Amino acid sequence: MLRTHTSGSLTAENIGQTVTLTGWVARRRDHGGVAFLDLRDSSGVAQVVVREEADFDPLRNEFVLQVTGSVERRPAGNENPNLPSGEVEVLAETVTVLNTAAPLPFQIDEHVEIGEEARLRHRYLDMRREGPQRALRLRSEANRVARELLHEQTFTEIETPTLTRSTPEGARDFLVPARLAPGAWYALPQSPQLFKQLLQVGGFEKYYQLARCYRDEDFRADRQPEFTQLDIEASFVDQEDILALSEELVRRLWKLIDVELPTQIPHITYHEAMARYGSDKPDLRFDLELTELTEYFKDTPFRVFKAPYVGAVVMPGGASQPRRTLDAWQEWAKQRGAKGLAYVLIAEDGELGGPVAKNLSDAEKAGLAAATGASPGDCIFFAAGEVSPSRGLLGAARNEIAHRVGLIDESAWSFVWVVDAPMFEPAAQAQAAGDVAVGSGAWTAVHHAFTAPKPEFAESFDTDPASALANAYDLVCNGNEIAGGSLRVYRRDVQERIFKVMGIPEDEAQEKFGFLLDAFKFGAPPHGGIAFGWDRVVSLLAGEDSIREVIAFPKSGGGYDPLTAAPAPITAQQRKEAGVDAKPEPAADTTPQGKNQEKKQDKGEAVAEGKSQG
Amino acid sequence: MLRTHTSGSLTAENIGQTVTLTGWVARRRDHGGVAFLDLRDSSGVAQVVVREEADFDPLRNEFVLQVTGSVERRPAGNENPNLPSGEVEVLAETVTVLNTAAPLPFQIDEHVEIGEEARLRHRYLDMRREGPQRALRLRSEANRVARELLHEQTFTEIETPTLTRSTPEGARDFLVPARLAPGAWYALPQSPQLFKQLLQVGGFEKYYQLARCYRDEDFRADRQPEFTQLDIEASFVDQEDILALSEELVRRLWKLIDVELPTQIPHITYHEAMARYGSDKPDLRFDLELTELTEYFKDTPFRVFKAPYVGAVVMPGGASQPRRTLDAWQEWAKQRGAKGLAYVLIAEDGELGGPVAKNLSDAEKAGLAAATGASPGDCIFFAAGEVSPSRGLLGAARNEIAHRVGLIDESAWSFVWVVDAPMFEPAAQAQAAGDVAVGSGAWTAVHHAFTAPKPEFAESFDTDPASALANAYDLVCNGNEIAGGSLRVYRRDVQERIFKVMGIPEDEAQEKFGFLLDAFKFGAPPHGGIAFGWDRVVSLLAGEDSIREVIAFPKSGGGYDPLTAAPAPITAQQRKEAGVDAKPEPAADTTPQGKNQEKKQDKGEAVAEGKSQG
Repeated sequence: MLRTHTSGSLTAENIGQTVTLTGWVARRRDHGGVAFLDLRDSSGVAQVVVREEADFDPLRNEFVLQVTGSVERRPAGNENPNLPSGEVEVLAETVTVLNTAAPLPFQIDEHVEIGEEARLRHRYLDMRREGPQRALRLRSEANRVARELLHEQTFTEIETPTLTRSTPEGARDFLVPARLAPGAWYALPQSPQLFKQLLQVGGFEKYYQLARCYRDEDFRADRQPEFTQLDIEASFVDQEDILALSEELVRRLWKLIDVELPTQIPHITYHEAMARYGSDKPDLRFDLELTELTEYFKDTPFRVFKAPYVGAVVMPGGASQPRRTLDAWQEWAKQRGAKGLAYVLIAEDGELGGPVAKNLSDAEKAGLAAATGASPGDCIFFAAGEVSPSRGLLGAARNEIAHRVGLIDESAWSFVWVVDAPMFEPAAQAQAAGDVAVGSGAWTAVHHAFTAPKPEFAESFDTDPASALANAYDLVCNGNEIAGGSLRVYRRDVQERIFKVMGIPEDEAQEKFGFLLDAFKFGAPPHGGIAFGWDRVVSLLAGEDSIREVIAFPKSGGGYDPLTAAPAPITAQQRKEAGVDAKPEPAADTTPQGKNQEKKQDKGEAVAEGKSQG
Repeated sequence: MLRTHTSGSLTAENIGQTVTLTGWVARRRDHGGVAFLDLRDSSGVAQVVVREEADFDPLRNEFVLQVTGSVERRPAGNENPNLPSGEVEVLAETVTVLNTAAPLPFQIDEHVEIGEEARLRHRYLDMRREGPQRALRLRSEANRVARELLHEQTFTEIETPTLTRSTPEGARDFLVPARLAPGAWYALPQSPQLFKQLLQVGGFEKYYQLARCYRDEDFRADRQPEFTQLDIEASFVDQEDILALSEELVRRLWKLIDVELPTQIPHITYHEAMARYGSDKPDLRFDLELTELTEYFKDTPFRVFKAPYVGAVVMPGGASQPRRTLDAWQEWAKQRGAKGLAYVLIAEDGELGGPVAKNLSDAEKAGLAAATGASPGDCIFFAAGEVSPSRGLLGAARNEIAHRVGLIDESAWSFVWVVDAPMFEPAAQAQAAGDVAVGSGAWTAVHHAFTAPKPEFAESFDTDPASALANAYDLVCNGNEIAGGSLRVYRRDVQERIFKVMGIPEDEAQEKFGFLLDAFKFGAPPHGGIAFGWDRVVSLLAGEDSIREVIAFPKSGGGYDPLTAAPAPITAQQRKEAGVDAKPEPAADTTPQGKNQEKKQDKGEAVAEGKSQG
């Protein structure tokens, strides 16, 4: 080592010793022929005193130094109680410049005011700051804690391929031309789903992997084209086994930030979550609930409320919102695909205001506050129409209200299991919600096609897809889906029936998943698992809003890396060598395998890597 | 859990208990109205006794069962001392078939006689065997032991991107079209080399990662298109720090297989390894050395031996090889690009035989045995010509001799550090050896372009590239290069001089590595690291010749996956969506970045994932 000690480790116990430090000049203050340097390394900062002007004159911020000197007690009154090394300083005997630094594009401190693009272009400077250092070290610790638990529970860590075939999880695949088989392409996996199931068929009863996954999406919100999930699968398990393991995992993870989680995480059914919170990932840090008013308005004269579903959510104190804010809510709703957001204002005297109120009957008006739990001064927002999108709109309004009104205790941690999701949803509904259905049937999977029905629906799920519930479970933290999983189908006949409901014809199923169906012929054990969206888990732990803050070299919008300028054009020679332009087999364009390469977001297990609430 | 106990955990202490087991029928023997099942799970095997014919009649091999019954002591004489559960058996009360199994394509036992292609096509069956189970679990343990050590030494685990730019490490890149930037492509990384250096610039002084890497090679020998390396980098280190860490790592790894390695691994210089063993990864489990005879033959009448280098290696007992075996040696040499392999046979009476002998002078003949250390009955093989290829041929012959004569103690473990490699080699020589030079200069890097010169060559390396030695080190185990690393360049001027020696013009360097050169401007610390070819390390630990045996789902020849049939054709729609056919920027075909996308094997740090000796 070029040093004997690290800066952050020096204490009064080192006084009198001669030490050699290495690090970066974080700050230099000159004081009457003496320079005081803050010398920073990964452990912290030490004060170095340089008395020779020839030594300190050339030094600039972020120069890399090797300093040898004696550790002394700082003069009385000069101690810095905020630093571990604050009692001491190093009197430099020799100062060696290991490397120089040109003037920086931005200063290395916690108060960066520059844009993210500039930070990412010089990420190697950005990450010298305390925040990124802390976030990425926390991530390393989270990995360690997770592996430690899984090792204790005799899980085997197994790597699965990333040059493979398409996995049908609702997003586009990234493709890789195969030079040695011109015209053929690998796909980068959206998750190790199929391989982890094959490992169960192969007798590895407890598998895990921190797996790199890939989804070619439109990078809206907080998505990354590559992301990491903690992927877990086990045989001969019940749902409770996976849930108990997951709860132990989050308890240990949150201990890293000194948070003691309760020993049991509450459960809510998917149906209840949708009904009460308008979301399958409800943020339960605040109580606000939706009220269903379908029955209440069953005889309403108001045409808009003559709908399969009418519901409301109350904004406390919302009656005082100015007109332009209420107009902005309409815009907000339209951006979510709704026609608008009906509202009623309750004045302090109880009088109802706003354009909707005059359409209601007197009886409806009289009982409305009581029916919705609203008080004078509140605003009641309404949604009316099909059940699912209406609840979705109110659920989004609920979150928005909570943010605007300040209902959220930012120090709180609210975990909840969302269980008993439907196996299927109408393909049209999925599409209306911005998803695209896998398969060409009237129904598509809410989780994914490999999710097992709950036993009571094992017989009926294909004759009555609307009612069938899945053995699926999502773990939600503060409104973020941080993990999702299910018990899996392990019988070929059941898997084939699911494909049929989803409108995946037999030849297509065989073409795409034949190896899985074949595997199920040869003694597949009952199995199930879960996957944690690791980037999101760590960003929650680190208190960061964006997953980019817990990724060493994240992409910015559009999948672009400002640091390396990837992606980049390739040369004609590369193109030729890679076989990009090789003619595919004549049959290829008519095989069914491309039909489902469409976008379907927020489904399946690769869930939580990049979603932000709102 | 669907079970209360695992099969392998049952012992006499469970006698009298009612247990529930789950697992696969490994074997069934019927015995007068009673069936004895070997029920296998991941922990081992238990004997289950089924008395009801209706229960056992339908059972076939690899059916998945749930069995509840009481644990009894086996009748005297029926114990199986080879099984942990060999003292007991389970008298079945209920037998539930969890899944059936069709007749298997091959039996699940250790004596597979089928081809690898069939094994890989049904890898989920193949991996139920004890060998693959053991190998993959050992891999998981190796991961754990490595991470434990690195955690103790305060290394931070950091993930680096895999959708990135080309890394110039001598192989072709796999390419990924970027749908959101049509005409632009990502490259899958050949190693995290550049990112791990940027992390050092970023102040993460100790980094590691078990990193997936990609090289689009021709899959000769034992290569995989994707492989894993344990990637390590640290700042402010000397070569000795990296070596000490690596030695501690292999000591802990080999403890997993109960091998106690010595506390110090010997060093040999690259030059000495080439001179004595004809290889930069000498197998030191046997002593056989090359003899240099250039001086000995300096006045030889034999035209072939009038060469810059003449050397020999002795095959003990080789004089008795029949003519056709000696002819086969010629073929063997020709396959390695040599013209042949000259030899002299020493008869038991000391008389020299073979076609070369008659060309030698009497004095040369008289002294030859003594000069080469050969004895009566031996065969002396010769190589003459340029130093490097001649030594390479003799080194290969040395290994081949050792295998044929049985010189290798298969239980031995021989580790050696090969240090002080040259920085550069003539590009022509690299090409002659089957490599392709990076850059268009007369010289190319022996390791890679980011390798630092030893301090004594810091001034002269570009004026006298032939003499410059690098601060590089390779760890060799039993003739396999299992790790390679170096201290890195961290000054922009030095890096630019190296690029110049290699004939990489400034604009090309800026285009390809501009972000690294920029980073070096802003206070890059001295740093260095190493990378272990993890697949090879684990295959050595597991006693497997092929790295495929320690990969869950390996590719077979040509990068084909017999299980999933990847790679596969894509549809016209996928092709269109992915932007494969988008016209690249007009300038792209003339940028220099494609010039070096040629093949250069066996260099740099992504070294050991798939090489087999020979």
